[in-house]
Amino acid sequence: MKNFISKEQQIIKNFFEPISQNKDSLNLSNDAAFIKSFKKSLVISSDMMIQDTHFNKKDIPELLARKLLRVNLSDLAAMGAKPYGYILNVGIPSVNHKRWLKSFCKGLLLEQKNFTIKLLGGDLSTSEKIFLSITILGSSNNYFHKIYPKSNSKIFVSGTIGDSFLGFQLKNNSHFKKIKKQLDDKSLNYLYKSHALPEPRISLSKKLKSYRVFCTDISDGLISEINKMRSKFKLGSEIFLKNIPLSSPVKKILKISDGDINIWEDILCGGEDYELIFSVCRDREKKFLTDFDLKKNKITEIGFFDNTNKLKIFDKSLNLIKLKKNGFSHF
Amino acid sequence: MKNFISKEQQIIKNFFEPISQNKDSLNLSNDAAFIKSFKKSLVISSDMMIQDTHFNKKDIPELLARKLLRVNLSDLAAMGAKPYGYILNVGIPSVNHKRWLKSFCKGLLLEQKNFTIKLLGGDLSTSEKIFLSITILGSSNNYFHKIYPKSNSKIFVSGTIGDSFLGFQLKNNSHFKKIKKQLDDKSLNYLYKSHALPEPRISLSKKLKSYRVFCTDISDGLISEINKMRSKFKLGSEIFLKNIPLSSPVKKILKISDGDINIWEDILCGGEDYELIFSVCRDREKKFLTDFDLKKNKITEIGFFDNTNKLKIFDKSLNLIKLKKNGFSHF
Repeated sequence: MKNFISKEQQIIKNFFEPISQNKDSLNLSNDAAFIKSFKKSLVISSDMMIQDTHFNKKDIPELLARKLLRVNLSDLAAMGAKPYGYILNVGIPSVNHKRWLKSFCKGLLLEQKNFTIKLLGGDLSTSEKIFLSITILGSSNNYFHKIYPKSNSKIFVSGTIGDSFLGFQLKNNSHFKKIKKQLDDKSLNYLYKSHALPEPRISLSKKLKSYRVFCTDISDGLISEINKMRSKFKLGSEIFLKNIPLSSPVKKILKISDGDINIWEDILCGGEDYELIFSVCRDREKKFLTDFDLKKNKITEIGFFDNTNKLKIFDKSLNLIKLKKNGFSHF
Repeated sequence: MKNFISKEQQIIKNFFEPISQNKDSLNLSNDAAFIKSFKKSLVISSDMMIQDTHFNKKDIPELLARKLLRVNLSDLAAMGAKPYGYILNVGIPSVNHKRWLKSFCKGLLLEQKNFTIKLLGGDLSTSEKIFLSITILGSSNNYFHKIYPKSNSKIFVSGTIGDSFLGFQLKNNSHFKKIKKQLDDKSLNYLYKSHALPEPRISLSKKLKSYRVFCTDISDGLISEINKMRSKFKLGSEIFLKNIPLSSPVKKILKISDGDINIWEDILCGGEDYELIFSVCRDREKKFLTDFDLKKNKITEIGFFDNTNKLKIFDKSLNLIKLKKNGFSHF
C-alpha cells in the first residue's frame, strides 16, 4: 500500500502507530480519538516546547520527548490526577525527519511505560523550527483546587529548588564560566539532568490526596508560583531562605559565589523545578504534620501565608531581602 | 496585583480569562481544566497551524483564530461528535503581542459563539515563528468510525471541491497570474474566503448520524482521503470527474485553462476543503437515497468503491486519467 498513501500517512504508520496500540487511539486511522467512557472527572492540560524558546535545535529528540511528557505529567500531579493519555503535536523540518522521529518516539515509548500513559492521537506537520506540544488527560475523583490556603497556612515544597535553572545557566550562560570551572563533574551532570529530565511528582501527589491540599507545580519559579497563589487568594506570605531545600551541587554554587544574591534569584525565580508547592487545609494540617513522613517524602516547610498582602523573604540572618525579579517570563 | 504577577499571567488575565468564563476552565487559574462529568463518549482531536507552513506572518490573527477552530471542528464533524470545548496553544513573538492577541482572541470569541464551544485552557509562550494548535473535545453517543465501506458502496461528498486550494494558489502562486487576470473579483474573493474560512460540516454531520455512515473530512485532498480509506479497508474505487461538485469560480478557472489536467490535480489533491466524504452502510443506502434531500444538503455522489484494489479516475469522456500526485503532503 506504500505507493498510494501520502508521506505524512507513511510517517504516522512507521513511527506513531507502533507506539499508540490502544483502543482509544483507533490506531490513529480516524479523525480523532474515541474514549468510550470516562468514569471519573476529566483533568486536561497542555504544555508546549518551542525551539529557541525552550530548547536548541541540536538537543537530543529522545530527551525532548521525555521532558515534554514529564512537564505535562507535572500538571496532572499538581491537580492530584491520575495520568490517562495524551494528544501529541509535532512540527519538524523535513530534512532528517526520520532520524529525528526515531529518537523522539523512543523517548515517548519509554515514558509511556514509566508512567502508564497512552498516546491517543495528534497532528504532524513540517515546520522550519521544531514545535512540540502535548495535551494531557488525567482522571480524578476529588481535586486539589477546591481547597484554599488561608492566612497562617504553612507552605510546603517537595524535593530541592533551583537545580534545573542553575543547570540551564551552567550549560548556556557564559557568566557562569567561572563557577563551572570550580564545580566537579558529578555536580554538573546532576544539574544538567535536573533541567533535561524533571521528575513529575505523580506518586507524591497521590499520597497528598487524603489531606486536602491546595497544590501547584513549580514551573515558572518558586516566587512566581507563590505570587500567583497570593494574587488568587489575596494573601501575603513570609518565606525563609534558610528553609529552602537545596541540593548539594546548588549549595556548592552558593559557597563558590559567596551567597551571591543573583544566585539566590536564579534559585527562587528561575523555574522549571516541577516540584510541588502546597498548603494543607487547616483542619488537616495537624494530622498531616504528625502522620506524614516529611523527611522520607522530601517535603520541606519554607514559610507561611499571612494576611499582609505582601511577600517578605528573609535571609539566613532573618533580614528582609528584595529580589529584582519576580519569576521567569518569556515575554 | 499587577505589580507582582508575571507578564505571562498578565496576558492570560487580560486576553484569555475574558473568553474562558466557564466552570471547566477554572478561570485558567489552575494547572489544568477540570470537567466534572462527561456523560457521553469523549471524542478528542488536534490540529496545528504553523507560520510559513500553513500561513504567513502577516495574516490577520482574527482569521487565523477562526480557521484554527474551524479546522479542528471539522474533525469533530467527521466523527459525528458534538463540539464541547478546546485547549489552546499559542506561541508568538514578543514584539507587538498585545495587538496580535487582541485580534486573535476576537476571532476565537466569535467562533465560540457560532459553534457553542468553550475555551478550557492551554499554554502561552514566546516563539520566533507563530505556532498555533488546538486540541478539541466533543461528545458522542454513537460513532461513524465503526461502519466500514464495502465494495459497491457509493461515495458521497458535501459542498464543492477545490475552492480552498485554488484560492490559496491564486493568492500565492505566480503561475496563476494569467488566470487571476481573467477572473472577476467576486470569484476571486469567494475562493480566497474558502481558503481562509472553511465551513466545518457540523450540522450535516448531525443529520447523517441516523444513517450509519463511514465518514471523514477532506483535509489532505479528495484523492488522498479516498486512498486512506482504500488502504484501511483494502478497496478499489472508481471516481468520475463529471460528478465532482465544483463551484462556479472553479468552473470558470477550468474554462479559462481549457480543462488543464494540472487544475484538476489542484482540485482533487490540493486539500483543505473540509467537506465531508462518506459512504452509507449498505442496509441504509436505499433509505438514505430516498429520504435524504441530497440537493438541499448539497451532497453529491462522485463514484463508488470496488474490490479491484485500484483507484480509477475517469474524465468527462469516461477515459481513464492518471494524476501525477496523490494528495497534499508537507513532507
